[in-house]
Amino acid sequence: MTGAEPGLMPSQVLSANRPDCDFPLNNLPYGVFSDDRGPRCGVAIGDRILDLAACEAQGLLDAGGTFAAPRMNDFIARGPDAWAAARARLTALLSPDGPRDLPLVAMAGARLHLPIRVEGFTDFYASRHHAFNVGCLFRGPDNALPPQWDHMPIGYNGRASSVVVSGTPVHRPMGQVAGPAGPEWTASRRLDLELELGAIVGAATALGTRITVDQAEDMIFGHVLLNDWSARDIQAWEYQPLGPFQGKAFATTISPWIVTRAALEPFRRVGAARTVDPMPHLRDSRPGFHDLAMGWTLNGQVMARVNYAVMHWSQAQALAHHASSGCPMNVGDLLGSGTISGPTPDQTGALLEMTRNGQQPVTVNGQPRTFLQDGDEVGLFAHAQGAGYRVGFGPCTGRVMPALP
Amino acid sequence: MTGAEPGLMPSQVLSANRPDCDFPLNNLPYGVFSDDRGPRCGVAIGDRILDLAACEAQGLLDAGGTFAAPRMNDFIARGPDAWAAARARLTALLSPDGPRDLPLVAMAGARLHLPIRVEGFTDFYASRHHAFNVGCLFRGPDNALPPQWDHMPIGYNGRASSVVVSGTPVHRPMGQVAGPAGPEWTASRRLDLELELGAIVGAATALGTRITVDQAEDMIFGHVLLNDWSARDIQAWEYQPLGPFQGKAFATTISPWIVTRAALEPFRRVGAARTVDPMPHLRDSRPGFHDLAMGWTLNGQVMARVNYAVMHWSQAQALAHHASSGCPMNVGDLLGSGTISGPTPDQTGALLEMTRNGQQPVTVNGQPRTFLQDGDEVGLFAHAQGAGYRVGFGPCTGRVMPALP
Repeated sequence: MTGAEPGLMPSQVLSANRPDCDFPLNNLPYGVFSDDRGPRCGVAIGDRILDLAACEAQGLLDAGGTFAAPRMNDFIARGPDAWAAARARLTALLSPDGPRDLPLVAMAGARLHLPIRVEGFTDFYASRHHAFNVGCLFRGPDNALPPQWDHMPIGYNGRASSVVVSGTPVHRPMGQVAGPAGPEWTASRRLDLELELGAIVGAATALGTRITVDQAEDMIFGHVLLNDWSARDIQAWEYQPLGPFQGKAFATTISPWIVTRAALEPFRRVGAARTVDPMPHLRDSRPGFHDLAMGWTLNGQVMARVNYAVMHWSQAQALAHHASSGCPMNVGDLLGSGTISGPTPDQTGALLEMTRNGQQPVTVNGQPRTFLQDGDEVGLFAHAQGAGYRVGFGPCTGRVMPALP
Repeated sequence: MTGAEPGLMPSQVLSANRPDCDFPLNNLPYGVFSDDRGPRCGVAIGDRILDLAACEAQGLLDAGGTFAAPRMNDFIARGPDAWAAARARLTALLSPDGPRDLPLVAMAGARLHLPIRVEGFTDFYASRHHAFNVGCLFRGPDNALPPQWDHMPIGYNGRASSVVVSGTPVHRPMGQVAGPAGPEWTASRRLDLELELGAIVGAATALGTRITVDQAEDMIFGHVLLNDWSARDIQAWEYQPLGPFQGKAFATTISPWIVTRAALEPFRRVGAARTVDPMPHLRDSRPGFHDLAMGWTLNGQVMARVNYAVMHWSQAQALAHHASSGCPMNVGDLLGSGTISGPTPDQTGALLEMTRNGQQPVTVNGQPRTFLQDGDEVGLFAHAQGAGYRVGFGPCTGRVMPALP
C-alpha cells in the first residue's frame, strides 16, 4: 500500500461523497448490523450499509460465507489476502461504475452490534503525557513515570466479557472505595472515561512464538474507538500491587465500525519523539501511528481535541511486546492504546487528568464538573482528514445510568 | 448435598476401589480425551476413562449430545440440574450393579486435552501467608500486606490463551529484566511455579448483575489444579503500576480432570481465621473451603505439603467479588486461587517464597537450587482423604524447556 493520499474516491452512493462524511469509498469500515433480519456483516458507505451477506448470496463477492456470521471474526481469520481481495471488490461494487441493484440498507433503520467476538482484551499505557499526568497525581512529578515506561509498552489484561458496542447504557458500578473510617461499599463517586484507539488482531500466533514489530503491524486488521470507562475511587483502592480490576471491569465501549488498516494507510505518520532507543524486539521500520484528529464530548460539548500521533508506543509495538514472552495471540484480540492525551488539559482523554483528580473542576454546559454524573452521555470521535474527504470512525457513545441496587 | 463422608462407593471398575486411587466412584471427574478417535468428553474411573460420547450414542445417558464436543463447556452450560442428573446416572452405570458392556478406555492409552475452552482467566491472591511472605520480600514486613488485602480478594485478569493442559512443555520465556546497566533482553533467570487451585465457572451472569457468595458457590462447576508459571525477573521489572503481564503470560498449566464441587462436598470446611469481618457482598453462610492435602514436586522430590483450607478468601468469594462491579461472568471462566502457602517454608507454593527470592537455596536431589532450571519437571498434587478412599485430582505436570531463540 502507498502512503500517497489519493483524494476522494467517488461512490455511486452519493451521501458518501460529502466532504464531512465519515464513510466515503476510501474508508469501507466493517461492522455487524440487523434490521428485520438477524445480525450479519456489512460495510458502511455514506448513510447506507452494504449487506455483505446478501452480496455473497447474490454472488457479488466471495468470502467463503463468512459474512453471514453475526461477528466479523470468521472473515478476519481468512487473512490479509482475503482482506485485500474483499476491499478491492467492494471498491469496484460501490464505485459509480458498479451495479445499480446492490443490497443497501439505510443505516438509520439498522441496529449496530458488537462487530467481533472479543477473544481477549488488553489495555496499554502508551501516551507519555497521560502516564506522566496521572503519575504526578498519585506519585508526584519525581516518580511520575515508572522506570520501565520508556523501555516497554506497559500493558495489563482487561476483561473481554464487558466490552460492549456504542450506545449500550453503562451503569455506575458499585464497589469498595477507601473512606475516612476505612473501606466503604458504595456506588462509584469518581466515574471517568478514557479516550482510546483499539486495535483488532487479525492473525493468530502459536504458544512460544515471538513476532517483530513489522510482523505485528501486518497482523492488525483494523481499529475502533474505545472508551475504557474507569471508576477512579474503586481503582485507587484496589490496584496495588496487581493492577486495575473491578474499577475497569464493568464496561468498555467500542465503536461499531472497524476502520481497516488499509483505509488508514495513506495517513500513516511517526509518533512522539523518543528519548530512549527501543530494544530490538520493539524496533519498527515504518511510521507506526496515524494522523487522526480525535476527541471526546460530554453531553454534546467538545471537552478535548488531540491527535493520535501524540502517542509514544504504537499498537504494533504493543502487540509485539504482548507476544514477546511466547503468549499466543488470537484473531479477535482487542488491544487498547491507553488514554490518548496531549500536554495541555484541553488535550486530555480523561476527567482524572483534565480536573487534576477532581481538584480543578471544568465547566460543562455552564455547570462546574469533576467526574461523570448519572445521565451524562460521553461521545468519542476521530477521523483522518484527506483532501476534500475524511476517513472517520463514526460515533462511539455511552450514557451513564444510575447504579443498580 | 450432605457434608457426611460416605465412605468408599464401590465400582464395577475394580481399580477404582483401591484406597490410593484418585478416581473412585465417589469422584467422577470430567475431562476430554482422544485415542484412535478424536477428542470427546469422558469421566475418569480407576485406571479407565468412560467414553461419555459413546455412552450417549448408546442411549446409556442423555446430555443433549454435548459429550461429543471436544470441550466440556457445552455440557457445563446445561446447568446444575443437568450436572446432578449426569452424576446420578454415572454413579449407577459404574456401580457393581451397572451394565457390563460400558465403553471404557484405558487411561494409559489415551491422550488428555484441555478440558474446557477457557473464556477468561483471572488469578487471585487469597493466601494470607503467601501475600505476607511475598510482601516482606519486596516491601518489608511493615508494608507486606496492601491495606485492602483483608477487605477484598485481590485479583487480576490473566491471559486465557496461554492456559495449557498438564504435560505440555513450558519454554522458558524471553523478556525484559532489570540489569546493573539498565534493562536487558534475556531468557528469564528466575523461573518459578505457583501451586494453585482453579475454579471453573459453570453459569453466566449478565452485564450489571451482582451475585451473593452463596449464589457464586452454586455457580462453580468444579476445580482443577493450576500451576501459574511465573518469571519473577520479568514480573519484577514490569508489574508496577498495572500488574503482572508478560511475566505470567507464557503458560499456565491445569490438570486434565475437573473434580466437581459435588465430589468435594463431603470435605467442605472453614478456611483461615479472619481478623476483619467481610463486607456484606463477601459474606458466606457455609464453609467456603475444602479439606485438600496438596503439594508439589520438583523432579519427583516432594518440595512442599499444605492444606487448601489454609486459604483466607474462598473461590466463591473471589467469584462474587469478580462480579461485584457488574462484570459479566461466563461458563468456562477459570479463577485461580493464587499461590497456596502455609506459614513455614516447607508449606510454600512457590520457590520465590521457599528460597526467599533466591537468597536461601533449597536442596533438590542433593543439589542447591533457587529457581527452575531447563529440564526440570514440576508436578502438583492434591486429594481429599476419605475413610479408605480418596478424591484426587491426578497429576498436573510440566517440564521446563530452553528458551526459544
